[in-house]
Amino acid sequence: MSTTALNHRIRLAARPHGEPTADDFVHDAVEVPSPGPGQVLLRTRYLSLDPYVRGRMSAAKSYAAPMEVGDVIVGGTVSEVVESAADGLTPGDTVLGYGGWQEYSVEDATGLRRLDPDAAPVTTALGVLGMPGFTAYAGLLAIGRPQPGETVAVAAATGPVGSAVGQIARIHGARAIGIAGGERKLSELHELGFDAALDHRAPDLAGRLAQAAPDGIDVYFENVGGAVWDAVLPQLNEFARVPVCGLAANYNATSLPEGPDRSGRLMGTVLAKSLTLRGFIQREFAPRMFADFLRDMTDWVASGRVKYTEDVTEGLDRAPETFTGMLRGRNLGKTIIQVS
Amino acid sequence: MSTTALNHRIRLAARPHGEPTADDFVHDAVEVPSPGPGQVLLRTRYLSLDPYVRGRMSAAKSYAAPMEVGDVIVGGTVSEVVESAADGLTPGDTVLGYGGWQEYSVEDATGLRRLDPDAAPVTTALGVLGMPGFTAYAGLLAIGRPQPGETVAVAAATGPVGSAVGQIARIHGARAIGIAGGERKLSELHELGFDAALDHRAPDLAGRLAQAAPDGIDVYFENVGGAVWDAVLPQLNEFARVPVCGLAANYNATSLPEGPDRSGRLMGTVLAKSLTLRGFIQREFAPRMFADFLRDMTDWVASGRVKYTEDVTEGLDRAPETFTGMLRGRNLGKTIIQVS
Repeated sequence: MSTTALNHRIRLAARPHGEPTADDFVHDAVEVPSPGPGQVLLRTRYLSLDPYVRGRMSAAKSYAAPMEVGDVIVGGTVSEVVESAADGLTPGDTVLGYGGWQEYSVEDATGLRRLDPDAAPVTTALGVLGMPGFTAYAGLLAIGRPQPGETVAVAAATGPVGSAVGQIARIHGARAIGIAGGERKLSELHELGFDAALDHRAPDLAGRLAQAAPDGIDVYFENVGGAVWDAVLPQLNEFARVPVCGLAANYNATSLPEGPDRSGRLMGTVLAKSLTLRGFIQREFAPRMFADFLRDMTDWVASGRVKYTEDVTEGLDRAPETFTGMLRGRNLGKTIIQVS
Repeated sequence: MSTTALNHRIRLAARPHGEPTADDFVHDAVEVPSPGPGQVLLRTRYLSLDPYVRGRMSAAKSYAAPMEVGDVIVGGTVSEVVESAADGLTPGDTVLGYGGWQEYSVEDATGLRRLDPDAAPVTTALGVLGMPGFTAYAGLLAIGRPQPGETVAVAAATGPVGSAVGQIARIHGARAIGIAGGERKLSELHELGFDAALDHRAPDLAGRLAQAAPDGIDVYFENVGGAVWDAVLPQLNEFARVPVCGLAANYNATSLPEGPDRSGRLMGTVLAKSLTLRGFIQREFAPRMFADFLRDMTDWVASGRVKYTEDVTEGLDRAPETFTGMLRGRNLGKTIIQVS
């Protein structure tokens, strides 16, 4: 690389208190790094924005170690190999990596997956054919196990995970109820083939859920929490399964909500209905399910049985505001930043 | 039967508000009923007292329909056949039935299991070789799935379910931590072979749990809820399994506890640790596991690998006070009323 090239980055300036603000991010530029043995220098083309990153901005230990203040914000990336010191990768190759919010990154070649731009648009490796799609596939099929004729409900249903959950449920013979906010998202759900689409912003979600699921709900794919969960819980059938994938409603919470304390009653419902609540991160299932996922989902996308939407914003600088907007539900489909 | 024989019964006089009192029960005596075709008249010898009955005294629907006010209190029974109008059962036979809190009952022969008094003491059909033993076996093995070297914790550990959970866990190569209240119960746990015994009445249960389970807890068999659950939750390992069998701490609750509302945080922990919470009632597993249970448990009891304690009180009239005492944890082992 020319020594004058700079790597523009966005780093964590401070841990957000509640919703992230511009002050929690710092933009800078440093010299483009060089790859060591077994490594490659990558130029970021597309950056994935995902809700789990909000959790990693906080200090609390969750399923992944938190970021440190000063770290480049993490994220999956589709990148082009610029310089290679690794066997099997050459400049011009397109790879799926984890470069984060920056223009260039140096990564170990072993952590990268080479993408074939002729097989599918490379951005799908960040969405329907990537981590979000696999999250839907593994959580729904390994934990939710929908049976033909059963009813599956999912919130944030136009997001990259939720939209795949509903469509895979239908492929497996179940009814799919999608919950989302606003008219635009509801019509998107109808286009995706959901059997019912409910607006969580309208009154009496519980009553409308009961109407949309007259035989109750057998699988609730949880990625929201909060008021939607409160409305779903009474509709769950005996032996219902709840893959717990995310709790977006809680991500920006700064303290516990007011009482009464309903945690004991939640356990009582788990007991009374023989429910299964199962938290999961997709990587748990990757060893035994990722190959099947890639085969099935590639077929489904190619045949049009699974549709997907991407919400692409140009420019790395817009990542912070786009990220915050996504946490507020402003995106439709998979949120991606086109970096170069 | 002589027409002068009377059937003394105890019926639900009123739904308890909180802890049941004497006024919630009514004692009466009616003529001994006669069996119809396919039925038998049974004389109750032993009556099982079980915590789940408290739930059925309330109006709220749970996994079983509530009792109605006026109903004879329900309960498993070991009884003698007095009069038979059914093939295969003759007077003098001993059977396991569901006669409830009364001296005589008429039951369909198809719902009864004939007991061999020479194979094992007949009272074990109400405890270690009956529903409580099977609850432990099915919940621990089908949901908890303890692996060799893992740590299993159970509360109410001297009860008929808890004591079997710990001993079966050890047979499967896991460490067993028992939680119970008071010195007498702790020494019982040591006699049963538990690796650690903790008093939930002593201060800092969480700290003592952390010491007793330095590698964390992989399976928590939940039959208590409340403060014990609060202490266990932080010690659960990633991928821990929680068979939710009972919530004795909540059974007498008359309102939700004060805030803050910790239900969202509970879901957050399920997600962060990839926990499995699974409510269950033993009957779900009976078709595929009861025969294995009876074979395994009979062997284990005969060989002394599983020990059991029975807490037998004489006289049907003492059932209400014995039941309330059991809910307060006054029993040691399986609570049984010797009726005749």
